Amino acid sequence: MVTDVQQACFEAGIKFGSLYHQFAGTPVSPRSARSLERAMAEAIENQPYCESVVVRIDDDAVREAIDHENGYTELTGRLMEVEMRVGYADTSVQTRMEMEDGYPLMKLVDVADGDADADGDANASDE
Amino acid sequence: MVTDVQQACFEAGIKFGSLYHQFAGTPVSPRSARSLERAMAEAIENQPYCESVVVRIDDDAVREAIDHENGYTELTGRLMEVEMRVGYADTSVQTRMEMEDGYPLMKLVDVADGDADADGDANASDE
Amino acid sequence: MVTDVQQACFEAGIKFGSLYHQFAGTPVSPRSARSLERAMAEAIENQPYCESVVVRIDDDAVREAIDHENGYTELTGRLMEVEMRVGYADTSVQTRMEMEDGYPLMKLVDVADGDADADGDANASDE
Amino acid sequence: MVTDVQQACFEAGIKFGSLYHQFAGTPVSPRSARSLERAMAEAIENQPYCESVVVRIDDDAVREAIDHENGYTELTGRLMEVEMRVGYADTSVQTRMEMEDGYPLMKLVDVADGDADADGDANASDE
Repeated sequence: MVTDVQQACFEAGIKFGSLYHQFAGTPVSPRSARSLERAMAEAIENQPYCESVVVRIDDDAVREAIDHENGYTELTGRLMEVEMRVGYADTSVQTRMEMEDGYPLMKLVDVADGDADADGDANASDE
Repeated sequence: MVTDVQQACFEAGIKFGSLYHQFAGTPVSPRSARSLERAMAEAIENQPYCESVVVRIDDDAVREAIDHENGYTELTGRLMEVEMRVGYADTSVQTRMEMEDGYPLMKLVDVADGDADADGDANASDE
Repeated sequence: MVTDVQQACFEAGIKFGSLYHQFAGTPVSPRSARSLERAMAEAIENQPYCESVVVRIDDDAVREAIDHENGYTELTGRLMEVEMRVGYADTSVQTRMEMEDGYPLMKLVDVADGDADADGDANASDE
Repeated sequence: MVTDVQQACFEAGIKFGSLYHQFAGTPVSPRSARSLERAMAEAIENQPYCESVVVRIDDDAVREAIDHENGYTELTGRLMEVEMRVGYADTSVQTRMEMEDGYPLMKLVDVADGDADADGDANASDE
């Protein structure tokens, strides 16, 4: 009833929601951005089927968001770009979070059914 | 390149990861479990495409997890069951978190392509 | 080396940091604000020495912060006021989070040493 | 009505509650523990009055807590030790989280009123 490709997309979504809601609100400054990027990536890479995570915190956006003298702000989707690759069975899913129309969007960029490709079955009939 | 059904499954995963990592760690007791269930459901129902969320915190499991005199524990996946329905375009996705083999699992329970059904296209060839 | 009054202030701070960083980032709308207020209060009231918590989410501020068509935003300190009372030994501590100069501030409002008061020792010499 | 020393203890508590509830629930394994330790420390060091944070995640405890084949667990107070130093006005506050009687405890270890010390007022009468 549920295909591997559907399961792969579901897993990709879980990783994105996890990353966002685990780390949103973290105090961040340009000084601490590198360690946070790395910890976010490595934490989520622990999760099942998660093949790679890249987090880029935008130091300029962070600086602009620092609106008080304390010199830090809280992490939100506006301050970072995220790329993630999830693999489930023969399916590889590429996702990305980036700003669109002034709002951070989590996007399903590509869903590749490796099995179908291997078969030369371009129209991916099981999907 | 990405179908509506794939997008629906991705959205369903996002909601699940969000719910879990936003609220895991919340101090909980049988006394506060009802308000937490409701807040979790209503918070996630705000998210796009999320049609309904039901959270059931297991008071017996909470009581068992309270291992010190303070009378509360921290919310984890072992202490609750969650059901969620996400709708994207013509697709309806049913998900559930429950214990399996002693471990809380987020499951894609059902993916229904309303459009295909309407066409009498029972084998949902585009999926 | 550490007095009861100091410990009381430390405990009050813990509750505030917990409340803020547990719930910041939660999707919120005027529709879900009431259940979130209640869950936040009851969750933190579970913690040791926490006597009462009142959370007021500002629906107008929430509406203003909703900057996209999805009809929700994420909880931050700008959208709520919080009052908390912590009791440790004979000390009662009153805290509050509110906007000041456009920035949400966690404040230690009052520290009352009940024991000293009982002694008619108004200037609380042990503090 | 509120002394600098009381404020210092309140600030120290805020940092501890923040650290705990921001990061509890993060997926962690021995492989990702180092980056998480560092990100936690640097994130909280951004907060006002926070002079230093040291986080040590116990790899053996993490390994023991990994109860399923996926090879990771979620961060809790049982898996780490934390030391923090907060400075407010002339007061320096030392805090620590460690296991006690099988339960992770946030402790106010030492409160030093530098001003009193400078006065040679060893018994810190105003505190």
